[in-house]
Amino acid sequence: MEHPLSDLVSLLMRLPGVGERTATRFACFLMNEDPSYAKALGEAISTLHDRVRLCKRCANFSQRELCGICADPHRDSGLLCIVARVPDLWSIERSGSFSGRYHVLHALLAPLEGMNTHRLDTDAILERIRSEGVREVIIATPLSVEGEATAIYLAQQIRPLGIRISRIASGIPHGGELEYIDQITLGRAIAGRRDM
Amino acid sequence: MEHPLSDLVSLLMRLPGVGERTATRFACFLMNEDPSYAKALGEAISTLHDRVRLCKRCANFSQRELCGICADPHRDSGLLCIVARVPDLWSIERSGSFSGRYHVLHALLAPLEGMNTHRLDTDAILERIRSEGVREVIIATPLSVEGEATAIYLAQQIRPLGIRISRIASGIPHGGELEYIDQITLGRAIAGRRDM
Repeated sequence: MEHPLSDLVSLLMRLPGVGERTATRFACFLMNEDPSYAKALGEAISTLHDRVRLCKRCANFSQRELCGICADPHRDSGLLCIVARVPDLWSIERSGSFSGRYHVLHALLAPLEGMNTHRLDTDAILERIRSEGVREVIIATPLSVEGEATAIYLAQQIRPLGIRISRIASGIPHGGELEYIDQITLGRAIAGRRDM
Repeated sequence: MEHPLSDLVSLLMRLPGVGERTATRFACFLMNEDPSYAKALGEAISTLHDRVRLCKRCANFSQRELCGICADPHRDSGLLCIVARVPDLWSIERSGSFSGRYHVLHALLAPLEGMNTHRLDTDAILERIRSEGVREVIIATPLSVEGEATAIYLAQQIRPLGIRISRIASGIPHGGELEYIDQITLGRAIAGRRDM
């Protein structure tokens, strides 16, 4: 149906997981709220790419040329953690268990979707390893098919440099009941068992 | 955690049903898409209240002083349908079963939330009934506690004008299996039975 909010509804429907019903709900909510809210939200969105860019070094989201992590002299530049997406970096930061620097791929290998090896910017990673004196690369791509394929490919590319290459562990999550864990995870937990 | 998207995430979290995780997902999606999308969406939102306002007569969303329905001379001005929200009006229009005009309340009585009778603009409705020669008012507020309370209150206010006042029917929905219908609906369907 043609109505005065249809332009906005179409644009909102491009957001992930937003269908026509949710988009309409958002548009009506914006109409019924104080106009200052729509103004503020609209401006935060339309100026987003002017305010936030990718860190020149690690491709994290940043308001400056270098992100806070790359600009921090206290981070260990000998440890480089490779992640697929910026929220993955935020999760690792929240865990407080990593003191090195990151590299964000913004993509994973997915040949069926046209995401091939030549579209993965490995040159930037290899260049960083050489110039920043990296001792170890931790590959923290997801434990999915695409994440694993990307990890294997990156390891192959980095191997000739002769540094340590590691992969985040796969196993039973904290508090996990073995009864409810899927077979692949259980298999990995046993294969990756540690002496105690 | 403080990060460059946190302003935008906070604003997005005010949308209905959007928590921090979804807001972050939207913000990252906007960063990873072509900047033209964020520009277009942001502008559609920030200019929303300049482009769309409430119809002067019925409070429907409209790009002009009068909405398309109020401006249409072929609509029967003798029938006035009162709805709570604009999407309810769209639903009735889609059903193609109503040829009159509307009045949108944009609110329902909810005394516990401070929504009292004096905040419901009944004067505008009474004035329209008098000046537009309305023969029948159909009250199409939802069949919820608030919707029913608002319907009863509106009927009390309109009663002195001596015109027909009706309420949309409550009963088993189309295709509804009696086995799975709640008791209140079933009770209403029996009380509202029609001769055949």
